[in-house]
Amino acid sequence: MAIRPLGDRVLIEVVEEDVQKQGVLYIPDSAKEKPQQGKVIAVGKGKYENGTLVEVEVKEGDIVLYGKYAGTEIKNDGKEYLIVRESDILAIVS
Amino acid sequence: MAIRPLGDRVLIEVVEEDVQKQGVLYIPDSAKEKPQQGKVIAVGKGKYENGTLVEVEVKEGDIVLYGKYAGTEIKNDGKEYLIVRESDILAIVS
Amino acid sequence: MAIRPLGDRVLIEVVEEDVQKQGVLYIPDSAKEKPQQGKVIAVGKGKYENGTLVEVEVKEGDIVLYGKYAGTEIKNDGKEYLIVRESDILAIVS
Amino acid sequence: MAIRPLGDRVLIEVVEEDVQKQGVLYIPDSAKEKPQQGKVIAVGKGKYENGTLVEVEVKEGDIVLYGKYAGTEIKNDGKEYLIVRESDILAIVS
Amino acid sequence: MAIRPLGDRVLIEVVEEDVQKQGVLYIPDSAKEKPQQGKVIAVGKGKYENGTLVEVEVKEGDIVLYGKYAGTEIKNDGKEYLIVRESDILAIVS
Amino acid sequence: MAIRPLGDRVLIEVVEEDVQKQGVLYIPDSAKEKPQQGKVIAVGKGKYENGTLVEVEVKEGDIVLYGKYAGTEIKNDGKEYLIVRESDILAIVS
Amino acid sequence: MAIRPLGDRVLIEVVEEDVQKQGVLYIPDSAKEKPQQGKVIAVGKGKYENGTLVEVEVKEGDIVLYGKYAGTEIKNDGKEYLIVRESDILAIVS
Repeated sequence: MAIRPLGDRVLIEVVEEDVQKQGVLYIPDSAKEKPQQGKVIAVGKGKYENGTLVEVEVKEGDIVLYGKYAGTEIKNDGKEYLIVRESDILAIVS
Repeated sequence: MAIRPLGDRVLIEVVEEDVQKQGVLYIPDSAKEKPQQGKVIAVGKGKYENGTLVEVEVKEGDIVLYGKYAGTEIKNDGKEYLIVRESDILAIVS
Repeated sequence: MAIRPLGDRVLIEVVEEDVQKQGVLYIPDSAKEKPQQGKVIAVGKGKYENGTLVEVEVKEGDIVLYGKYAGTEIKNDGKEYLIVRESDILAIVS
Repeated sequence: MAIRPLGDRVLIEVVEEDVQKQGVLYIPDSAKEKPQQGKVIAVGKGKYENGTLVEVEVKEGDIVLYGKYAGTEIKNDGKEYLIVRESDILAIVS
Repeated sequence: MAIRPLGDRVLIEVVEEDVQKQGVLYIPDSAKEKPQQGKVIAVGKGKYENGTLVEVEVKEGDIVLYGKYAGTEIKNDGKEYLIVRESDILAIVS
Repeated sequence: MAIRPLGDRVLIEVVEEDVQKQGVLYIPDSAKEKPQQGKVIAVGKGKYENGTLVEVEVKEGDIVLYGKYAGTEIKNDGKEYLIVRESDILAIVS
Repeated sequence: MAIRPLGDRVLIEVVEEDVQKQGVLYIPDSAKEKPQQGKVIAVGKGKYENGTLVEVEVKEGDIVLYGKYAGTEIKNDGKEYLIVRESDILAIVS
């Protein structure tokens, strides 16, 4: 099943935690919000600001950091995905 | 009875849960908001942003994911419908 | 007494509940907000968005669905009316 | 003493309740907000939306309905007045 | 010491209560917000709306009504003043 | 160390209280917010409103009144400073 | 791993507290929010205001003051970073 996000939403494939940690990103032990890593699968066409369409900055294939509590979870063909608004995405890592 | 949604509202025919599960979409067991599946029956003409009409992105016949607690329920000719704002629709599935 | 709503307000004649039920619309038993049915008697001239007048989408004679707790009740010549903002109207039924 | 309201404010002379009831308007017994009747004495020059002046829709002499708890009361030469924002006025009656 | 208000702020010299009452304005005994009277001493240059400067509507010397709890009190050369935003001023009296 | 405020922020050198009182400004004993006096050391370049840069109205050297609880304190070379948004500044005194 | 912030976000390398104190900046003992010092590593491309892109005012290499509780912490190659919105940055120090 293909999922096409609406507006400024982004479909993210969740990267498992242990894969995240053995790599490069480690989240320090503090009270602040902790970001998660994921892979962009699909993006919406953007949102309107004052009648002008502003496109989504991330694109398919980008590895992104996003807030842990952001978005809506869905499962499709056995994999876990998240639909978040682009404003919940903090950065692209490469 | 025909129902024509106003503004950026969308009329959705609710897809029953067991139909959803045996298909492709399964919602994982977590505290996050769980999306529902439905079929778009009718859409409003859009909403004005700064005096410019922005049309609704979904169209009649689209299968969509939307937030579980979104919208207003109505029953018409024995079927259950939901009127939601387009911003409550997360994605189109196909 | 004639009542002319201001701005994006709409004057609605309330349709009695038993008339609603024996017709086509039945509201399911749930915790969600339940819409009511009414007939548009008069509409305001619209509201300004960024200095541009956006007219009201409904018109006199339309049968509309609106949120149960919306608006201000008035009684005029023995009939019950409601003054609501257009954004409280969900759909036109026909 | 003359009182000239500022911006989108409107000066209303309060119509006494028993005059209201013996006329045409009766407010039903419910939990909803109940409108009051009054006569427009003076209006402000309007308010700016995005740098454009939007004039007040009501004019001197109009009989209007407004929310019971709206505005600021003043007494001038023995009469009671109310200064409300135009958005607190629901409708013009005639 | 001269005080020049910034933006859409207005410097008001407070008119003492007994002067107010023996004149024309009497505030009725109710739960509503009660306006005060004062004299405009200086006005700011206005505020920007969408990049356009909107000037302050009141001018030096105007006698104004304003909400009792509005603004910031200062004392200068033995007199009491108030700095309020123009939106806290209800009307000009004359 | 030089400190350059960002956006519509202003760097203020705090004027000590006893200096304030023996001068001209005395804050009356009431429950209202009490303004403080300070000297502008540096200003940001302004903020964008609808894509247009609106410059800061105060300038280096101005003596200003600002809300007591506004801004962020910093100490630099033994002196106390405050970084406030321009909207927290009430007036320029001279 | 390279981290590219999105929108008006800024990637900051946290400067350790003792380095901050022995230098020039000392935060006084009060209840107000205390700023932190950091070095800008990367900036997003800016954010859209009314359809116009407003670029980020800080640039790579700037030493900045930011609110203590702002942003999201990440650790990369053993160093601590913070991703903040530009509006959380108070000033550039030099």
